[in-house]
Amino acid sequence: MRIQEKAVTAEQQPTSQPQRIDRYVGQYAERAVGMVASEIRALFAVAARPEIVSLAGGSPYVAALPLDVVGGMVGKLVADHGAQALQYCTAQGDAGLRERICDVMALEEIKAHPDEIVVTVGSQQALDLLARIFVDPGDVVLVEAPSYVGALGAFASYQADIVHVAMDDDGLIPEALADAIRRTEASGRRAKFLYTVPNFHNPAGVTLAAARRHRILDICRRAGLLVVEDNPYGLLGFDGEPMRALRADDAEGVVYLGTFSKTFAAGVRVGWAVAPAAIREKLILAAESAVLCHSSFAQLTVREYLSTQSWREQIKDFRELYRERRDATLEALAGMMPPGCHWTRPAGGFYVWLRLPDGINAKAMLPRAISSRVAYVPGTGFYADGSGSQFARLCYSLPAPDRIAEGVRRLAAVIENEVQLLEDFGPAAGTR
Amino acid sequence: MRIQEKAVTAEQQPTSQPQRIDRYVGQYAERAVGMVASEIRALFAVAARPEIVSLAGGSPYVAALPLDVVGGMVGKLVADHGAQALQYCTAQGDAGLRERICDVMALEEIKAHPDEIVVTVGSQQALDLLARIFVDPGDVVLVEAPSYVGALGAFASYQADIVHVAMDDDGLIPEALADAIRRTEASGRRAKFLYTVPNFHNPAGVTLAAARRHRILDICRRAGLLVVEDNPYGLLGFDGEPMRALRADDAEGVVYLGTFSKTFAAGVRVGWAVAPAAIREKLILAAESAVLCHSSFAQLTVREYLSTQSWREQIKDFRELYRERRDATLEALAGMMPPGCHWTRPAGGFYVWLRLPDGINAKAMLPRAISSRVAYVPGTGFYADGSGSQFARLCYSLPAPDRIAEGVRRLAAVIENEVQLLEDFGPAAGTR
Repeated sequence: MRIQEKAVTAEQQPTSQPQRIDRYVGQYAERAVGMVASEIRALFAVAARPEIVSLAGGSPYVAALPLDVVGGMVGKLVADHGAQALQYCTAQGDAGLRERICDVMALEEIKAHPDEIVVTVGSQQALDLLARIFVDPGDVVLVEAPSYVGALGAFASYQADIVHVAMDDDGLIPEALADAIRRTEASGRRAKFLYTVPNFHNPAGVTLAAARRHRILDICRRAGLLVVEDNPYGLLGFDGEPMRALRADDAEGVVYLGTFSKTFAAGVRVGWAVAPAAIREKLILAAESAVLCHSSFAQLTVREYLSTQSWREQIKDFRELYRERRDATLEALAGMMPPGCHWTRPAGGFYVWLRLPDGINAKAMLPRAISSRVAYVPGTGFYADGSGSQFARLCYSLPAPDRIAEGVRRLAAVIENEVQLLEDFGPAAGTR
Repeated sequence: MRIQEKAVTAEQQPTSQPQRIDRYVGQYAERAVGMVASEIRALFAVAARPEIVSLAGGSPYVAALPLDVVGGMVGKLVADHGAQALQYCTAQGDAGLRERICDVMALEEIKAHPDEIVVTVGSQQALDLLARIFVDPGDVVLVEAPSYVGALGAFASYQADIVHVAMDDDGLIPEALADAIRRTEASGRRAKFLYTVPNFHNPAGVTLAAARRHRILDICRRAGLLVVEDNPYGLLGFDGEPMRALRADDAEGVVYLGTFSKTFAAGVRVGWAVAPAAIREKLILAAESAVLCHSSFAQLTVREYLSTQSWREQIKDFRELYRERRDATLEALAGMMPPGCHWTRPAGGFYVWLRLPDGINAKAMLPRAISSRVAYVPGTGFYADGSGSQFARLCYSLPAPDRIAEGVRRLAAVIENEVQLLEDFGPAAGTR
C-alpha cells in the first residue's frame, strides 16, 4: 500500500523513474538493509479513506482544540515575536518552553530543572537519539511485549538486539524483567536500557501498577540498567490523579520522555527528554547533528500555549472526550465480539489490545477487514520477534462514539466470518 | 562555553547533578565517543551578547519579513485548517508543500515531480539521513575543503572517513576531485558520495563555475559516485539569474538538498531532499524512524506562504539586503585589514572566508577578538583534518551595515595587534 496523494498525468511523470536495477544497491550502509516500511506507515493511507472506520492510526482528536483561539495566539506570536519565532534556536531547545515543561511534569510529581530538559522532534526523536548514543550493532535493548512500533523501529535501525519482557494486566512483570536481565548476563552481554511505557500502554492499553513501580526501579538499579520511561499518555487517565512517574523516584537511573502530541497538538512535533547530566549532554550533541535545532516556531507556539491558555482545562476536556470513546469501544466490544475474543480495559490513553479467537491471524485478516470498511493495526508490528499475530490494536481516539460502534460491528462480523471459515475448512482457509 | 540562559537559584538546582563519575560511561555506542561540541554551537552563546558584533552565527535576517502579514496568515491557517495543521503528517511530507517546492526549484531549472521530494527538518536532517543510509564506520565521503561544519558533524557521527577535495575561487577543482577518487580507489575503497555546496559556499564564499559543472558531473558519473548537492543559498545571488543546478542535468546521479531557512524562515526548519527513487524510499523510512514525521504546522505554514504571499519578491528583498551587507563587508575589509590578509568576494549568500597573515591562528585569536567585542568562526571547524587554523569565516547576514563596519574595524585591530606581537616576540607570543 503506497500513499497516493494525487493522480499523476503523463506530463507530470517523475523524471527519476524507479529503475529496474538500483544503481546504488551495493552502497548502502548495513543498517539501511533492515529498513522496511512499518505497518503504521502503510496504514496512514488506509486511515485517510472516508468510508473506512479507522481504528488504526493513533492520532489525537486535535479538532477539540479551540482552533480560532489558538490561531489568534499563534498569529500574535509571529506578529510580535517573529524575529525570534522564525529564527534558529539552540539544540537544547527554548529555555522558556523548558520552564513550562517543568510545570507539566510536576503533575506527575517530577521535580526537574529546565537545564535537565532537551526538547525533541516528538518523542520519536528522543527514541532515535537514545538508540544513537547507546546502541552498537548487536547490543541488547529490553522492551515490553508488545511495545510501541516506533520504538522498535528506532532501535532496530541501530541494529539493536531487541529482547521482549512479558506484561500482564498490571503492566511489566518484575519477575520477567529480572529473568530477562539474568538471561542477558548469562549470555555474556549487558542490556543497554529498558524501554517501558508505564501508563495506558501503546498498544497494550495496560498500566504499570503502583505497587510494581518501586520493584521495577529496584531491579534496574541493582543491575545498573538505565530505564527509558516513555510517557505520552500519562495525563490522559480517566480515573483520579496522574500516576507518580518512575523518574520522580530515580533522577539518575531514568530517562523520561514526554510529548505534547496528545495533550496539545501532534502537528507541532514537540517532545522532550529529561536525562542525567552526562546522557543529556550527548543527547544535545546528537540532536544538533541530527537536525541542528528544533523549530523555534513550534517551540514558541507551545510555550505561548502553556503560558497564556488554560491548558490544564484543555487536558480535562481531552480526558472526557477520550473516556467517552473508550466507553463506546468497550461497550461495543462487550456487545458484539464473538466468543474467543479478549481485550484489555484501558484506564486512559488511546488503545485497546484485542486478542482474536485461536487460529485467527490479524495480519492475514486485515485486507478482509478493510474490504468491510474497518481498519486496525495487526499485532505483529508491536513485536520484534514475529509474534503477535493473534492480536490487533484498536485506537479509539479519533472516530466519534457512533462511528466506533459501527467500526466494532464491522470488525465483529469479519471475525465471525473468519471463525466460520476456520471451522468449515480448517487452517487452509488462509487466515494463518 | 555553555549557554547560560538564566541565573539558577539554590532552590532551582537540578535534581540530577553532574556526577564525578558518569555511571553510564562504559555503555555508550562507539559513535557517541566522537561526539564533541561544535564550534558553531558554542558560538551561538557568544553571538547573543548585545555588545558583541557577531560575524559568527549564520542566521538569516528574518526581521525583514512582513511579520504582521505572516502572523495574520498563520493565524488564519490554524483557525481554518487547524485540524490538519496540528495533526500528524506522512513521513514524506505534505503533498501540497511538495508541489510548491517544485515551483521553487524551477528557478534553478530543476524539473521534478512532487513524488520525488522528501521534506526534512532543515537540510541538516537530510544530511543526517543520507549519512545514516549510506555510511558504515570507516566509509569514505568526499567533501570540499573547507566544508559546512554541520555536514562534517553529521558524517562524522556515522564514523565516516572524511576526505577533503580542494577548491579555488571557482569552487571545487575537477582535477582534485578526480585525484581524490583515484586515491580512494587505490586504497581499495570506494567513496559513498561527494558532498558539495556549489553556490555561495559556506564557509568559502565561492561558487562553482558554470564551465566546471558538467565536468564535475561527468567525473562522478564515470566513477559511479553519487553527488549530494546542498544548496541553501542558490536563490540569494547578487548578480543575474540563479545558476543551473547540478540536479537539473542528472536526475539519477544527484541528490539535491534545499531549505527555506534562508529564503523564508530558519525557525520553521523546513528543508527537502530530491533523490532517485531507491534512495528516496530509504530516506522516507529513515525519516520515519528518526522523527515519525515533520511538523504539519511548519509545513503548512510554508505551503501557505508560498501559495498566498509574494515569495519571489521577498527573495529579491533579501538579496538586496544581503548584497548591501556584503558590500559593507568587502568595503570595510578593503579599507581596514592589515597587509597579509586575503578574502573571498562572494557573489551571493552569507559568507566571506578570510585568510589571516602567516603565523596567526584564528582559533587562538578568538578569545582576544571576543574581548574586543567581535566574533567569527575559526576555520578549523570547517575541516575534518585539523587544518584551517589560518582562516576565519565572517558572516554578514545579521548585523546592519554600520555594525559590520564596526566589527571589521575591531577585528582588524585585533589582527594588527597579533601581527605586532608575532613580530616582537615570535611564535612564543601564543597565537599559534
